[in-house]
Amino acid sequence: MKQAVVLLSGGLDSAVTLYLAKSRGFNVHALSFDYGQRHDRELQAAKAIAEKAGVEAHKIVTLKLDQWGGSSLTDKNMDVENGDVDRKDIPVTYVPARNMVFLSVAASYAEAIGARDIFIGVSQVDYSGYVDCRQEFIEAMENAVNKGTVMGAAKNQPIRIHAPFVHKTKSEEIQLGADMGVPFELTWSCYRGGEKPCETCDSCLLRAKAFEEAGIEDKALKA
Amino acid sequence: MKQAVVLLSGGLDSAVTLYLAKSRGFNVHALSFDYGQRHDRELQAAKAIAEKAGVEAHKIVTLKLDQWGGSSLTDKNMDVENGDVDRKDIPVTYVPARNMVFLSVAASYAEAIGARDIFIGVSQVDYSGYVDCRQEFIEAMENAVNKGTVMGAAKNQPIRIHAPFVHKTKSEEIQLGADMGVPFELTWSCYRGGEKPCETCDSCLLRAKAFEEAGIEDKALKA
Repeated sequence: MKQAVVLLSGGLDSAVTLYLAKSRGFNVHALSFDYGQRHDRELQAAKAIAEKAGVEAHKIVTLKLDQWGGSSLTDKNMDVENGDVDRKDIPVTYVPARNMVFLSVAASYAEAIGARDIFIGVSQVDYSGYVDCRQEFIEAMENAVNKGTVMGAAKNQPIRIHAPFVHKTKSEEIQLGADMGVPFELTWSCYRGGEKPCETCDSCLLRAKAFEEAGIEDKALKA
Repeated sequence: MKQAVVLLSGGLDSAVTLYLAKSRGFNVHALSFDYGQRHDRELQAAKAIAEKAGVEAHKIVTLKLDQWGGSSLTDKNMDVENGDVDRKDIPVTYVPARNMVFLSVAASYAEAIGARDIFIGVSQVDYSGYVDCRQEFIEAMENAVNKGTVMGAAKNQPIRIHAPFVHKTKSEEIQLGADMGVPFELTWSCYRGGEKPCETCDSCLLRAKAFEEAGIEDKALKA
């Protein structure tokens, strides 16, 4: 069976991505990070989704990017802003080079287990100023992965980075996820911690808008 | 003053690289990793070198790449081979995608502090089968860094990855290091731990050969 490493944050995008990788016949090795998030709701969600989906393995890597701050998602002295879905500037929730770090570690894991496929659930349609969610970044990373691993550079077994939703809207993702039976109620999108989503941060607003556009009820709000 | 992030393993190459960055007028932010090495002699060496050089900051990031094994440097169930300086195959000391992970984290750190320069002490001349020590990998990573960070992709402040020794031999590095007063006696190259270098592993053999070619005594062996 084909092996794949799937980046699993515990959010909606990564959950749909994981189910898509499974539907394409991959044996999934999920990879999550404890990178100094303000709260661990996302990691709890990642564990629940991985278990529900029946993955082959789920690794949680501790990597304290909060050592140098720079983001309200890791720096407890910064406030999470209330949301603005039409934002044009770089949000304070940006974590420097986060997806680059995640994809590099995924490449290490992939090479160790001989997996030639890595999945990441980024979208540049709703990208909110996160430059590392764009197609051109994914392509640059795939090139670097294949120059910097033995599989890609010496064994002629190139590794592919799949970003299946890079040109999809979140509502298209939700529709596909619903068709595949993704347990949306287990996913966590809110930038703030707490018992329930705050429904006011950027991430909550984008999620609500996308569920509305998809014409699907978000069961996470009722849980 | 210009800020730079310098990857500092505690080995000879990274120590000379750090001194070179200082000699070029950079304020140095050293970055080391606890990635599950078999022993902590390298990290002790990194601390001693950073202190001796008087760096602006020294961060040690814990990142357990040993979770998935694949290398005798992190997997305690594998033996470190005795050396062969003319080796053509991939050595068992290869850690999957190590330099890619290190450079990605360095990019995160650089962006958080506004540094536009990253230094890494790789050489493809003595590269011993490590594909991530080659010029083409460094160029691919620099491209990815500038597609995946706000500084490179949105603010027109590209980050440069300097690999000053990529086309230099280790003996040329040692000669330059001697001119700059690098404290070679504080550096650690041996793949095995212990009080003194084993003088039989690949890394010890390459180091001994390079000091001999440079006509310089390796004080680390007398310490």
